[in-house]
Amino acid sequence: MRRPRTNSGAGELLVELRRDTSVPLHQQLESGIRERIRQGLLRADAVMPATRALAADLGLSRGVVVEAYQQLVAEGYLVSRAGGYTQVAPAAAAVRTEQPSAPATAGPPRIDLKYSKPDVSQFPRAAWLRSVRKVLNETPNSSLTYLDGRGADELREAMADYLNRVRGTSARPENVLICNGFAQGSRLLLQVLAAAGYRRLAVEDPSDNEVRDVATKAGLETVGVPVLETGLDVAALERSGADVVLVTAAHQFPTGAVASAQTRAGLVAWAAEHDAVVIEDDYDAEYRYDREPIGAIQGLAPESVVYAGTASKTLAPGLRLGWLVLPSRLVEPMSAAKVMDDRGSPVLDQLTFADFVARGEFDRHLRRMRPRYRRLRDALVGRLAERLPDLVPIGVSAGLHVMTWLPPDLTEEAVAEAALERGLGVYGLAPYWVGERGPDGLVFGYGSLTESAAVEGVDLLADAIRSLRR
Amino acid sequence: MRRPRTNSGAGELLVELRRDTSVPLHQQLESGIRERIRQGLLRADAVMPATRALAADLGLSRGVVVEAYQQLVAEGYLVSRAGGYTQVAPAAAAVRTEQPSAPATAGPPRIDLKYSKPDVSQFPRAAWLRSVRKVLNETPNSSLTYLDGRGADELREAMADYLNRVRGTSARPENVLICNGFAQGSRLLLQVLAAAGYRRLAVEDPSDNEVRDVATKAGLETVGVPVLETGLDVAALERSGADVVLVTAAHQFPTGAVASAQTRAGLVAWAAEHDAVVIEDDYDAEYRYDREPIGAIQGLAPESVVYAGTASKTLAPGLRLGWLVLPSRLVEPMSAAKVMDDRGSPVLDQLTFADFVARGEFDRHLRRMRPRYRRLRDALVGRLAERLPDLVPIGVSAGLHVMTWLPPDLTEEAVAEAALERGLGVYGLAPYWVGERGPDGLVFGYGSLTESAAVEGVDLLADAIRSLRR
Repeated sequence: MRRPRTNSGAGELLVELRRDTSVPLHQQLESGIRERIRQGLLRADAVMPATRALAADLGLSRGVVVEAYQQLVAEGYLVSRAGGYTQVAPAAAAVRTEQPSAPATAGPPRIDLKYSKPDVSQFPRAAWLRSVRKVLNETPNSSLTYLDGRGADELREAMADYLNRVRGTSARPENVLICNGFAQGSRLLLQVLAAAGYRRLAVEDPSDNEVRDVATKAGLETVGVPVLETGLDVAALERSGADVVLVTAAHQFPTGAVASAQTRAGLVAWAAEHDAVVIEDDYDAEYRYDREPIGAIQGLAPESVVYAGTASKTLAPGLRLGWLVLPSRLVEPMSAAKVMDDRGSPVLDQLTFADFVARGEFDRHLRRMRPRYRRLRDALVGRLAERLPDLVPIGVSAGLHVMTWLPPDLTEEAVAEAALERGLGVYGLAPYWVGERGPDGLVFGYGSLTESAAVEGVDLLADAIRSLRR
Repeated sequence: MRRPRTNSGAGELLVELRRDTSVPLHQQLESGIRERIRQGLLRADAVMPATRALAADLGLSRGVVVEAYQQLVAEGYLVSRAGGYTQVAPAAAAVRTEQPSAPATAGPPRIDLKYSKPDVSQFPRAAWLRSVRKVLNETPNSSLTYLDGRGADELREAMADYLNRVRGTSARPENVLICNGFAQGSRLLLQVLAAAGYRRLAVEDPSDNEVRDVATKAGLETVGVPVLETGLDVAALERSGADVVLVTAAHQFPTGAVASAQTRAGLVAWAAEHDAVVIEDDYDAEYRYDREPIGAIQGLAPESVVYAGTASKTLAPGLRLGWLVLPSRLVEPMSAAKVMDDRGSPVLDQLTFADFVARGEFDRHLRRMRPRYRRLRDALVGRLAERLPDLVPIGVSAGLHVMTWLPPDLTEEAVAEAALERGLGVYGLAPYWVGERGPDGLVFGYGSLTESAAVEGVDLLADAIRSLRR
């Protein structure tokens, strides 16, 4: 067999080698060759320079070059041939990575009333760091390995104490499960319920119905049930044939309604009668400004209600910390589902949050934030009353959003468009209707505004609406 | 209507009130009453004491009692009756939470050779804390809100740099996705692949086949393909009809085989020919003791291979940090799947790890751990050669485990049982076979042992085996 002519001289392989780093020379040579193969500078079947020649060219000992070639042969970039020479492997040559297209995004509006974020600028960084330090100093090694699917004992204890005290739940640490926010918690719950034979999920209409896709994937049908001023219409729930219901009883999203005592009792009775499950999404109940928040329904019927809470509205969404208080029969299947899903939530965050709650920092943070949000809400609602008196806020004084209906001459699409032209993001109810689309309205999220931005936002909205009415 | 007789005098409601705390008196009273209702001490329809009487009994102003009753009426624990009195609501009375049965667990063996954990006692707590402090001091607020499903930019950049440098990957930050360990990453990937029409997953036989349940749930069939000394049998893969394969090419689990250059090229060619996907689970490649680790296959074919890595074997499983390097066409669907799954991984951990990697702390940690694990492995393998020369370790010197076959006179079940009687946990291959069960063998995990425990473990094993051969 004739040996092929070397088509790649050592000169083409002038890899820049640095002697001032701790990276061994053979590794530098390897990366240099790998890179050239990937870039197509060394093509398929190109014969590599003889080790002796390349070593001389680069001022290396031959052993270094041999080591690099051997490594790249083992990795599949080069092939060692019978004649004693080395070629670029065909499969490796001219590997190209495609550039994924950058997602197209329009610039954000100057003032954005989109609901979702709390004011993360107020995240208690110093107090959080104190808790991290304590955890890293004191946590036993055994806590750093795989854990119980329910989460760290310390956090389950801290949350049971906190929720029983502040939210009137009847929680025991054994029944608490820590999850990565409501998104994961509700998904696992719907999967477990579907596997247990539940078939139909009722959701409030209107509501934040992101959960619908998740329910469908889990094999549950979704049905909307109207929200009244007293919370979910229990008679309609009764007729719906649902066996699971998701409610935001303490502060309905988006209407701001609070479930009355009768609604609460009705939900509990409905669950008992039909062996059904109530999922209580207590997403922002910590923020009630006019009175003490209504305690959780879970406290009335802990074996029928799954309580769900989150740090996303109180601390920061980026923490991805949520918690469920489960009926006893769901503890084992949910724990198993969590383990299968991701082997449990990250433990350092859990222990940090446990310390943060146990030391009263969470209460302190909430006490500090409540008046801030209240002032924001007052500024927004006050300016609305002045400038747009026919946009009447409904719902109680709570949370991080307020909703108004629109007068019949306005549509939410037209208002949103005219507002956006003025640099204001304002959002309608359309995405929240489950069944037929209901009347037009607006949802104002004020969690991450300043007071002056809230006022200016209403002014821009007033201007937008005036332009539509001209 | 006759007013029912008060059957619950104020005396029964001697709630212990503390005036030395910041908890308002009406809240203390509320919790006290709630608790008594739950415990069945206040029964359904029990008439509550008149507010005036209870206030006098407890030394409170009447307003405090009224406030507490109103709150509990709103919450559904009490019902306000037309005659001006208040009763315990039937639904609320005698709420009992069932005690979930404690999971039965036998005591752990004194020395446990179960594979999985690294030595978490070596978790670099001080360096980690430095990174947390830096992150909490410097991270912009915008990073604390909901993020791109792929994860924090900082970590995607740090991991692309690290993996390209250390693992020979061809990663760009845009193609990196951060997940909660391999468990979540592989689950999302199989779901996305199933949705894209992939049908059959090939796994190594034997292998850690926890992924099989996940594949089945995602709608993929699983098929086992034999592992040779040169890695996966590519000819058998070809015949299997699979369109996805999961490989541990750098250090096969459990056999310890390393995929040869030919196997690597074969996998790449197979993927190209069948438009198939290779999932490269690079779970412990950072720990190779006899030579530089073989670079990742992903570097050869970044548009056919998904690279998967994890901090579970290098730092601590409790971190739940994993990463995928994705072919470009999978970036968008995987990012969307991650958002739907849990809205992204916790951000503080991501930013902390990014800083930890970028500052070279991760390399430093690995450099420190490699000789420790190597010594452990040497101690274990050395003692095996002395005491049990017919248990011959196979596979390369790498990772946190070693495997041996068993001589024909021994079964893994008998050995495990005799070992457990001596306080030693030792584990067979049975759970790892995918198709037919293969020959008997043992897998020794030494990640979290001490050298003396490794030696003592082998001695106990030798004693156990001697007892079986007597």
